[in-house]
Amino acid sequence: MKPTITAFANSPDGGQGLARDMRVRWALEEVGQEYEVRLVPWEDFKKPAHRSKQPFGQIPTFEHGNLVLFETGAIVLHIAQTHQGLLPESPDARARAITWMFAAVSTLEPPATDLEVNEYFEQNEPWGAARRPAVQKRLWTRLGDFAAALGQKEWIDGPFSAGDLMLVEVLVRVEAELKPFPNLVAYVDRARDRPAFKRAFAAQKAVADAAGEPLKIR
Amino acid sequence: MKPTITAFANSPDGGQGLARDMRVRWALEEVGQEYEVRLVPWEDFKKPAHRSKQPFGQIPTFEHGNLVLFETGAIVLHIAQTHQGLLPESPDARARAITWMFAAVSTLEPPATDLEVNEYFEQNEPWGAARRPAVQKRLWTRLGDFAAALGQKEWIDGPFSAGDLMLVEVLVRVEAELKPFPNLVAYVDRARDRPAFKRAFAAQKAVADAAGEPLKIR
Repeated sequence: MKPTITAFANSPDGGQGLARDMRVRWALEEVGQEYEVRLVPWEDFKKPAHRSKQPFGQIPTFEHGNLVLFETGAIVLHIAQTHQGLLPESPDARARAITWMFAAVSTLEPPATDLEVNEYFEQNEPWGAARRPAVQKRLWTRLGDFAAALGQKEWIDGPFSAGDLMLVEVLVRVEAELKPFPNLVAYVDRARDRPAFKRAFAAQKAVADAAGEPLKIR
Repeated sequence: MKPTITAFANSPDGGQGLARDMRVRWALEEVGQEYEVRLVPWEDFKKPAHRSKQPFGQIPTFEHGNLVLFETGAIVLHIAQTHQGLLPESPDARARAITWMFAAVSTLEPPATDLEVNEYFEQNEPWGAARRPAVQKRLWTRLGDFAAALGQKEWIDGPFSAGDLMLVEVLVRVEAELKPFPNLVAYVDRARDRPAFKRAFAAQKAVADAAGEPLKIR
């Protein structure tokens, strides 16, 4: 039986790979696990049926038999722990890869999301523009720290892992801010060259193309 | 050999349990694992020696033999996976507990941190006060969603787990905002009643008391 994930019926990004089901699709493609997709219309996100699977009313979810998961980090980790290919074999190396998964969602993603919030939701506030430099500065500090840790390595710690997958998926959210860090641009490009990334991206884009007009969230 | 964690030499909170080594101390106490603590002065956080263990120049880190980890979520998960007591036995229940760990650090903690940033660092900006209601509203939405998911259960999903530990450690950061959610207040109180929590808190406070004047970060 294949797992089922949920995704936007019409993603606000129009299929540019930013909706968070991309992370799960990519992980499933990396390990060669087929999956089903259930599209959720925006108006159903906060309804009880979806909230019973995702208490915060977001996508994606992951369902496999009786197991229901949410949080992309947890879903990707579950996929990585139940298949070969996304985590190293050695226990120490596995723990380090998981550290990078947490770094992606709890150290790098919050300032990236903050910049998105400032761009999308605070732009019409009288103080929206005044706040932007502080938001960018916090993001740049984190990006600079990560760029220093990556250096000229191909992936963050040995072969490509679920850590890289989650890190790249955060970096693409703030692609315009990566320019001062050429090694981060090259890192994202390497990731996008992976056949599994391309299949996941194409699958997500096909949904957006079929949906027509992207959801307006501003 | 005991693991070694790092902590603030003089925490800005003066030992109120908010420095993030508390999460790791608590997890180690829950599983009965003794540990060593290396105190890091603020001025050493961004130096190469510490950054080689924590690329973002923060505390805590976790060192055990050749393994060096950072990110509290990853450290607590590692402790939970290598000891009994913080994760359920069934694979599905384990995956759900890990989902709540990620929800703590990537869904609940970012708006909680945003409120802290607004209170500590934006209070002197001309727009600091104007922004506060939007920050609070985002936090209250997430807290309300989590309160609905918790309901009148003792812990979020079966017996106390690493998921509860991480969730509680985020909630205590915004304790003043929990008042509209009596079940969250009671949840935090239940957690604080655990002997392991009390031991961890006392150990962290002893460091702060010995350090004297708390670090000023505002």
